[in-house]
Amino acid sequence: MRVSQVLVPTLREVPAEAEVVSQKLMLRAGLIRKSAAGIYTYLPLGLRILKKIEQIVREEMDAKGGQEVLLPIVQPAELWRETGRWDVYGPEMFRVTDRHEREFCLGPTHEEIVTDLVRGEVRSYKQLPLLLYQIQNKYRDERRPRFGLMRGREFVMKDLYSFDRDEAGLAESYNKMYDAYTRIFSRCGLTFRPVEADAGAIGGSGGTHEFMVLADSGEAAVVYCPDCDYAANVEKAECSPHPIESETVNGEYERVATPDSKTIDQVSDFLGLGKHELVKSILYQGDDQIFLVLVRGDREINEIKLNNMLGPFVNLQLAAAETVRETLGCEPGFVGPINAAKDLKIVADLEVPLMKRAACGANQPDQHYVNVLPERDFRMDQVFDLRMVNAGEKCPKCGGSLQEARGIEVGQVFKLGTKYSKALNATFLDENGQEKPCVMGCYGVGVSRTIAAAIEQNNDKDGIIWPIPIAPFHVILVPVSMKDTQVAETADKLYEEMRKAGVEVIIDDRDERPGVKFKDADLVGYPLRVTVGSKTLAEGKVELRFRKSGEMELVKVEELTARVKEIITEALK
Amino acid sequence: MRVSQVLVPTLREVPAEAEVVSQKLMLRAGLIRKSAAGIYTYLPLGLRILKKIEQIVREEMDAKGGQEVLLPIVQPAELWRETGRWDVYGPEMFRVTDRHEREFCLGPTHEEIVTDLVRGEVRSYKQLPLLLYQIQNKYRDERRPRFGLMRGREFVMKDLYSFDRDEAGLAESYNKMYDAYTRIFSRCGLTFRPVEADAGAIGGSGGTHEFMVLADSGEAAVVYCPDCDYAANVEKAECSPHPIESETVNGEYERVATPDSKTIDQVSDFLGLGKHELVKSILYQGDDQIFLVLVRGDREINEIKLNNMLGPFVNLQLAAAETVRETLGCEPGFVGPINAAKDLKIVADLEVPLMKRAACGANQPDQHYVNVLPERDFRMDQVFDLRMVNAGEKCPKCGGSLQEARGIEVGQVFKLGTKYSKALNATFLDENGQEKPCVMGCYGVGVSRTIAAAIEQNNDKDGIIWPIPIAPFHVILVPVSMKDTQVAETADKLYEEMRKAGVEVIIDDRDERPGVKFKDADLVGYPLRVTVGSKTLAEGKVELRFRKSGEMELVKVEELTARVKEIITEALK
Repeated sequence: MRVSQVLVPTLREVPAEAEVVSQKLMLRAGLIRKSAAGIYTYLPLGLRILKKIEQIVREEMDAKGGQEVLLPIVQPAELWRETGRWDVYGPEMFRVTDRHEREFCLGPTHEEIVTDLVRGEVRSYKQLPLLLYQIQNKYRDERRPRFGLMRGREFVMKDLYSFDRDEAGLAESYNKMYDAYTRIFSRCGLTFRPVEADAGAIGGSGGTHEFMVLADSGEAAVVYCPDCDYAANVEKAECSPHPIESETVNGEYERVATPDSKTIDQVSDFLGLGKHELVKSILYQGDDQIFLVLVRGDREINEIKLNNMLGPFVNLQLAAAETVRETLGCEPGFVGPINAAKDLKIVADLEVPLMKRAACGANQPDQHYVNVLPERDFRMDQVFDLRMVNAGEKCPKCGGSLQEARGIEVGQVFKLGTKYSKALNATFLDENGQEKPCVMGCYGVGVSRTIAAAIEQNNDKDGIIWPIPIAPFHVILVPVSMKDTQVAETADKLYEEMRKAGVEVIIDDRDERPGVKFKDADLVGYPLRVTVGSKTLAEGKVELRFRKSGEMELVKVEELTARVKEIITEALK
Repeated sequence: MRVSQVLVPTLREVPAEAEVVSQKLMLRAGLIRKSAAGIYTYLPLGLRILKKIEQIVREEMDAKGGQEVLLPIVQPAELWRETGRWDVYGPEMFRVTDRHEREFCLGPTHEEIVTDLVRGEVRSYKQLPLLLYQIQNKYRDERRPRFGLMRGREFVMKDLYSFDRDEAGLAESYNKMYDAYTRIFSRCGLTFRPVEADAGAIGGSGGTHEFMVLADSGEAAVVYCPDCDYAANVEKAECSPHPIESETVNGEYERVATPDSKTIDQVSDFLGLGKHELVKSILYQGDDQIFLVLVRGDREINEIKLNNMLGPFVNLQLAAAETVRETLGCEPGFVGPINAAKDLKIVADLEVPLMKRAACGANQPDQHYVNVLPERDFRMDQVFDLRMVNAGEKCPKCGGSLQEARGIEVGQVFKLGTKYSKALNATFLDENGQEKPCVMGCYGVGVSRTIAAAIEQNNDKDGIIWPIPIAPFHVILVPVSMKDTQVAETADKLYEEMRKAGVEVIIDDRDERPGVKFKDADLVGYPLRVTVGSKTLAEGKVELRFRKSGEMELVKVEELTARVKEIITEALK
């Protein structure tokens, strides 16, 4: 390909609309353009990258026996009503009404459609397992679409659905996909981690892993153990209690005045106690239930865990100040569990009962209790792991010291169980002629999001640094002058030679200054740059530069193609 | 691929929903399934076919310098308002409102989006010509979606848009696309014709050709000349007048009673005159204009031509009986031009003034005039070609005898001119620094429709007959018994051998009777079938059968792969 003949409108300025690095660089490098909030056009180079990722995904799905199909984007409401999700989905679902007043949605996901297909075609256990996938646009009407391809309203996903005879079959399909995903993101040249994730209310059978591309800008926090393969989304990560050695209080608890001390920090300062000596007491409201949640003052409440254990709630949130006043008779900053009304449910993290000397709010303005002993001084109706993990805590698997990282979720594998097959009656006859619901899994890769994640992980001040497997072209050939006949001709010869050798090469044949060409090459992020200039040509050489390391080497003209092929072959292994 | 491991749910019965052959066969062959009216899922084999056509299209677009992009499906209403098409499009456009009450449509076409892109990126004549294309879903909310992929609501199209400096550039881009389309449908192995088509009101510069796959079941009628390359949609085909030799009337016209004779046939019978001796007089209403249209009695009025010359009208139709009574004071069957009111516009086909002796309605019940001489006896305000062509007429290009055929429109190339670039202000600076609007063309291939058209053209009572270039697999290998070890092993060996040789082969490894396998193979329509049975194996041979001709040949096992490759290579040339 020739730069002069392809639409790569690079920009020197950062477009005002861009908030994150990947978005800025994709716009500046001329890979995408915005059409509307969260809706983008892929320009030629952007589409090349998208297709490369698609192709890697496709090969790995096929290798595991996945069958590619293409399901409709526009889906009838009736199917979503059968599973009850038409009403649950809320404003995130784009809805369409046709000329005959029939309702449809733009598929945010395809469980309904694919299960409807399978219930029509599968009769016997002999037809299972069945792994169907597609690569296609999905739609989600985000409240605040932003960050470019990171959180769009129209985006490309690969989604595979597995149909098995039983849980054992599902486990096998799940493992296949887990392997495939590991291969996909490895093949893309990305640093990633599969992490245990929260299955939430949706998960019939429960198991799920998220695949996280590690990047400091990632929205998700994960913990991992450097000593074993444990890794989890912080939302999911199990917390074992870390009791703190101290003397047990003797004597009654006492009330002390804590004027203007509402936050944990303020109370800790005022009382001269460690935060771990305080009981953080927060009133929550889950739909129409109200309950008091206790954790140690140095910990954070994990609402996902709360919701899983006590819910699922449609709406779980901190109780409003007014509700706190009505329930406990005080302002939010002074809430505590002592003398709480009998009908108020109190739930506590595992560490709370282990506290031997504590302070907590007194449910009165500017008042706290000290010398409190949990259980002796207040009841806990339910005690479970309800807190967020912290870096440095013990690995629940091997006891190593957990580390924290940030990641961008690019894939998820999920055991659905029989939720959809039961709702839609997708059954089969087993060996004994018994009718059974298919046991399902679903497995998504955010294909367009992977582009953004790759950039978040691989960039510098000059632009993108593409991993070779997903680069729009492997090599950019830069003749420093198109007017120097020898330079132009050598460049052209090398271009043709590399092309014929199967190298993905683009030549910057524009009549521009070398500085402009170099800047654009760095911005777009081609892994290898070959500079053809008169000075090195005098010695029969060209300059080969690695975008990632900045290293350069002089290579004989006649050896260039072989050298380039060697580098690429190594990277694609 | 193994039949046992791919979802090809063939059906013996024709689904009740199916109306046309291609739809019946695609459902029966397990290529597609219906999700909603006009909305389909592509099953694995159907998707393979779709992708083969896409790939042929892509290669030919790339060969002409087309750059592939991916434009959004969900498009903001504002852009469509800029060109005025938001209101014009009517109920065929699916409309969506997002959570913030902003309006969008599901793109039925992409002129607005692509012109918006280009106005943002193109500044200079040096950036032109620019040919951008995509292959993607389109949406049209048909009133009666039917005929499967022939007329769907969600369908796959390739659309390319060309941007040029001037009309000469547009002509060049147009010719490139015309060539590319010719290559595409040839490469698909289809019998087709590019035909001149009507540009209608939309066409700025006017030129347009439709690419028609010929099939008796086609919705469109075309005429073509066997002696030259002239071919046109009957709506568009130019008609030269074919005067009829007869004596000129002498004497006045006379009124005769024609009781109960309203139609041309009845009047012709009653008066004992040829239909070519009658003037067919029809009152039309175009929006709020009324006019009288005259053609010879043996001809049909072409409303497209009427509309092009006198309109464009939003609504052009036969005048209602009541309007006829009000305007002419008689019933529709007796309308004629003689003594028509002065303010009634009369338009006539080219052949009418050439009539030397005619009969026509007398604007009175059961009355006609005979011995009428046009121009002497009635005025004609405008005379132009306004009729439909007939088979057997002279070719307007070479004088040969036109023949009629039916076709399915699978592609259209269209000169848009500056309609969209002006409306959206997509301009460039020319060599002299003058700002000019880009001159545009648009070029569509109905990719999913081409599948249906291919089947309409290539089928028999047993099923589909795929042209090799777009067949889901080139060869089906049928072991007549999976229990006969020698048969099963030989089949497996041949399968692996062909695969390794790059043959697209599928093996029917199911434990089914040979009759079932043969029926399925014929139904799906694989071009070549290789039957492995013990009888021929005894002689070291297998049977190679051609789906299209039904011919069979016995081939030595060790020569099969070479023979198959030879046939396929020849077909893909």
